[in-house]
Amino acid sequence: MSQKDRQFRPVAVPAVKLSGFWGKWQDAVSETTAEILLDRCEAAGMIKAIDVGQPSPGIVIPIGPWGGSTQMFWDSDLGKSIETIAYSLYRKPNPQLEARADAIIDLYEKLQDEDGYLNAWFQRVQPDRRWTNLRDHHELYCAGHLMEAAVAYFQATGKRKLLDILCRFADYMITVFGHGEGQIPGYCGHEEIELALVKLARVTGERKYLDLSKFFIDERGTEPHFFTEEAHRDGRDVADFHQKTYEYGQAHQPVREQRKVVGHAVRAMYLYSGMADIATEYRDDSLTEALEALWDDLTTKQMYITGGIGPAAANEGFTDYFDLPNDTAYAETCASVGLVFWANRMLGRGPNRRYADIMEQALYNGALPGLARDGKTFFYENPLESTGKHHRWTWHHCPCCPPNIARLVTSIGSYMYAVADDEIAVHLYGESSLRCELVNGADVTLRQVSNYPWEGAVGLEIGLKKPARFALSLRIPEWAAGATLSINGGMLDLETIMTDGYARIERDWQDGDRVALYLPLALRPQFANPRVRQDVGRVALMRGPLVYCVETTDNGADLNAIVVPRDLPSGETVALPGLNGAIAVDLDVEREGTEDWGNGLYRNSRASRKPSKIRLIPYHLWDNREPGEMLVWMQAG
Amino acid sequence: MSQKDRQFRPVAVPAVKLSGFWGKWQDAVSETTAEILLDRCEAAGMIKAIDVGQPSPGIVIPIGPWGGSTQMFWDSDLGKSIETIAYSLYRKPNPQLEARADAIIDLYEKLQDEDGYLNAWFQRVQPDRRWTNLRDHHELYCAGHLMEAAVAYFQATGKRKLLDILCRFADYMITVFGHGEGQIPGYCGHEEIELALVKLARVTGERKYLDLSKFFIDERGTEPHFFTEEAHRDGRDVADFHQKTYEYGQAHQPVREQRKVVGHAVRAMYLYSGMADIATEYRDDSLTEALEALWDDLTTKQMYITGGIGPAAANEGFTDYFDLPNDTAYAETCASVGLVFWANRMLGRGPNRRYADIMEQALYNGALPGLARDGKTFFYENPLESTGKHHRWTWHHCPCCPPNIARLVTSIGSYMYAVADDEIAVHLYGESSLRCELVNGADVTLRQVSNYPWEGAVGLEIGLKKPARFALSLRIPEWAAGATLSINGGMLDLETIMTDGYARIERDWQDGDRVALYLPLALRPQFANPRVRQDVGRVALMRGPLVYCVETTDNGADLNAIVVPRDLPSGETVALPGLNGAIAVDLDVEREGTEDWGNGLYRNSRASRKPSKIRLIPYHLWDNREPGEMLVWMQAG
Repeated sequence: MSQKDRQFRPVAVPAVKLSGFWGKWQDAVSETTAEILLDRCEAAGMIKAIDVGQPSPGIVIPIGPWGGSTQMFWDSDLGKSIETIAYSLYRKPNPQLEARADAIIDLYEKLQDEDGYLNAWFQRVQPDRRWTNLRDHHELYCAGHLMEAAVAYFQATGKRKLLDILCRFADYMITVFGHGEGQIPGYCGHEEIELALVKLARVTGERKYLDLSKFFIDERGTEPHFFTEEAHRDGRDVADFHQKTYEYGQAHQPVREQRKVVGHAVRAMYLYSGMADIATEYRDDSLTEALEALWDDLTTKQMYITGGIGPAAANEGFTDYFDLPNDTAYAETCASVGLVFWANRMLGRGPNRRYADIMEQALYNGALPGLARDGKTFFYENPLESTGKHHRWTWHHCPCCPPNIARLVTSIGSYMYAVADDEIAVHLYGESSLRCELVNGADVTLRQVSNYPWEGAVGLEIGLKKPARFALSLRIPEWAAGATLSINGGMLDLETIMTDGYARIERDWQDGDRVALYLPLALRPQFANPRVRQDVGRVALMRGPLVYCVETTDNGADLNAIVVPRDLPSGETVALPGLNGAIAVDLDVEREGTEDWGNGLYRNSRASRKPSKIRLIPYHLWDNREPGEMLVWMQAG
Repeated sequence: MSQKDRQFRPVAVPAVKLSGFWGKWQDAVSETTAEILLDRCEAAGMIKAIDVGQPSPGIVIPIGPWGGSTQMFWDSDLGKSIETIAYSLYRKPNPQLEARADAIIDLYEKLQDEDGYLNAWFQRVQPDRRWTNLRDHHELYCAGHLMEAAVAYFQATGKRKLLDILCRFADYMITVFGHGEGQIPGYCGHEEIELALVKLARVTGERKYLDLSKFFIDERGTEPHFFTEEAHRDGRDVADFHQKTYEYGQAHQPVREQRKVVGHAVRAMYLYSGMADIATEYRDDSLTEALEALWDDLTTKQMYITGGIGPAAANEGFTDYFDLPNDTAYAETCASVGLVFWANRMLGRGPNRRYADIMEQALYNGALPGLARDGKTFFYENPLESTGKHHRWTWHHCPCCPPNIARLVTSIGSYMYAVADDEIAVHLYGESSLRCELVNGADVTLRQVSNYPWEGAVGLEIGLKKPARFALSLRIPEWAAGATLSINGGMLDLETIMTDGYARIERDWQDGDRVALYLPLALRPQFANPRVRQDVGRVALMRGPLVYCVETTDNGADLNAIVVPRDLPSGETVALPGLNGAIAVDLDVEREGTEDWGNGLYRNSRASRKPSKIRLIPYHLWDNREPGEMLVWMQAG
């Protein structure tokens, strides 16, 4: 089998046990966030909304100027919350929480129509509007999130009820969508169902779900345009389309022709995720070609250094190339979660650090900031500079981000490892243990011992009932200059075994074999392409995969007066027990004088500079202490 | 008389003839803008709206969420347009335009109520709402603009009709406002009437109009709060106030207690202008003390280097100290026009470059950009950086700025010179000729020969029928290091005759005396207080009173890649015939490489720099050629 024909699929969440860095975050979600999600969904009226034993709640959140209500998304919020609970239950049994989830699933069972249809809004609030506005009404989007929940809940608890409900719904969709007589040749304005159907197919082994996913992907953006025809049938004017364009939902071109990342950021990420899954499952090179171009477009012209994407609030999405304002960055948590999804699926056709490095960058710096350290509050927007007025909130009228980051954190194991027939890829590092079975029957345990990302030493121990031949592919991040690798104490020559940024070790493994990887975590300066006008003359600092920032609580006010020296000192690392044991870096810098400036606002001479010291903390931990200013891109001396 | 007791009043517009720099701008307004204003007011329906011979237009512009319609401001637009026409007629007779203005004045005469009341909206659209919502409905604001028009039209044409109409209205106001039985103890939410009444008092010699102005100023912000009581009477909830706060209209405190510039920027400037007029007329030191504090607050913490003020669109006004975003700057043209008004009136109690320097800065760089070189299009917002999408428009739903900059340009002579009993102050330089009479009977002609602001040489020639003693005060701008001054060829020692930044020459003047002033116009770097986070690491360049900028049409794209060297070269001046003979400056700089950056968006090393040349043009002339990027604050090397 050629390299290109390999198919890597993420391992199931229960296959990985986490401790260390991610273990702590998973505890925060399992012990706090998971329950909060249900409480807040319940308080919002979401559970009442699906309970056929109670009167329909009607329109609780008014119809907005876009012709819909965010209440239409409630099924997705419940879906993502159940998915989070599923992963949490695996980590830590919680009978009470499981009972609450079971009760919701029972309600969905009662709600489901005879034909398999399931949607709280279109069954209970606007039953006459079913399948009338796929572009705007998130109908299949909601179905997709319930489908992901069903797969997760089945994997975590072994309970099939929700899975069966969603299979019935998917079977019904297969009759509804298509080019046959009376069928709808359409797709959802907000992508999600595509990647969900792939999960359903993988867990059930049913190819028909893959085919439906591929149908939605193949149809998107073709002419005659479904959104146009649908609007005409529904008596709506195309000129009144929410956000005007077809680009908003990436439906402006057939997906295989798309080369530019446009529109709503979360939608784009979910679409590309589905495309990548289908490319993997069907070994579809035409999709892969489009995906690679889109990947370059996003990561070389439209991505914050945090892996945040979608700078504008107006369309929750993309604007012009190199337009990356720091203080007004939208950079929705969900969009970075979506980028992690996409990157992970780009690894389906083989390990490649081009994708995995960005997956890690977006995970730590784009997605994770969305969750407070205590698991109780959430960021929707993730600016890279704050004057002190941006803080996490407890809930949102469109609460998409809280369960999205929560389900990512609790399922992170499946992003760390992927398995092909005879190969295990380690995409992410962190204290954990994988158990998986290979095609040749080998039952492998892979234990990572590491304080990553705080320290760069990663120990891997192989557990085997009997010796087995397979390849172990370890990502060597592009930033890790000077990385070293040894097996059972013997150094390997990394250069000779590198493929696409992974050290690929194919050998006969013995039980107890030990691999030692060392990734140097020196503080390193990062500069932006000078076409990013907001970052010229500025420098960001990274350590390993983590973007660092300064906050007022450590460094006082007027953070923009800090000047990072041209010759970057190495800094001094300090562990902060109050921040999950995070490694801070204390650095000698200069600081412009704001006190001795004088009276005028402007003057002929520069500000004076004097030596100063700053403390940098990982960006994902900002706004977890006293509120104040925050800054990522500092003045470069 | 002590220095403090002097009272300087601006000369009437017809007292000054302009040529040179301002002559060209006045020609653009007289020949083009003045007529455009009337055409567009007419097209908007404003003239029909005051014509009692036609049915009431009703509500043409819908009532907005603030409880009013911008149609309520139509009288002010007509007022400022007539004021512009008045000044234009003085410069250049135009019988057709004068006839159109006369016809509008005739319509206002017919519209005016028996009691003197005059307002197109409250007579023709909502007659039952007269004087019910002074806070939001701009009723006295409209009256003030008609009053300014009346004074200007009388001064320019000698025709009294509009002046008599407004005197009747003002006489009626005197009966309406006050603390007497049945009187309204109130004032307008949008200040303007205060300064207009002062103009009316000065031209009619009627102190009663000054007293009414002072009443409005004295009442503002006192308790019990008029806006609260008015709202209660009108059945409105204070919690629903447009823009919520009393600060929005500077009514949060009695004006003499105010120390911080807040709220809507234009309102603030108009209020302070009225306060300064009253301070001058009544020699009111308590007002002057507040005004001086407010002046410092504005100019040392809240003003763009252009003299633009009010950074936020949300409240068309002020935000936090040192918050001066360049690309999203609101910096309304009207607000800088208002700052010129205020600065000019701060000179009422004696020449002082603390005010006059800012007046000049705001005039050239904050207000003047609002008008295209051809007089046909207008800026409302004045950002200091543009990615190429900001351009002048032909009209606006709230067309306050076009007639505001037009009337300022055509009346600029009255800002250049001010006269006290025995003293002439020259606040601004430029080719012009003043004729005035002093208290001692001297009939003085003062001719300025100068290519200012393009060149720094200013010749002043005194014309006198007979010798006379008086003081001539010439502003020496703070930026003009190395300025020299001579009389009839004999150098003066500037230091010995400087008072508050003015060279004061008191002597017996003879006909034909010549004063030669030289103001060096070297290009000079300007740095912002490092608390202005948007400007750290950046430098702006000024030459004389002018802020310079770079545009794509001269310098290509990616202007933020330009790096101005630490040791600023002197640059080479180039006259641009296509831009009114403006002086451009060609400068050797460095430029960061955007082409050789490589593929990634971020990297470990800085961008390469190579020598380059840029062309700087005066900021007020930007967007008069091919559209593209524009930048004021460039990277400082």
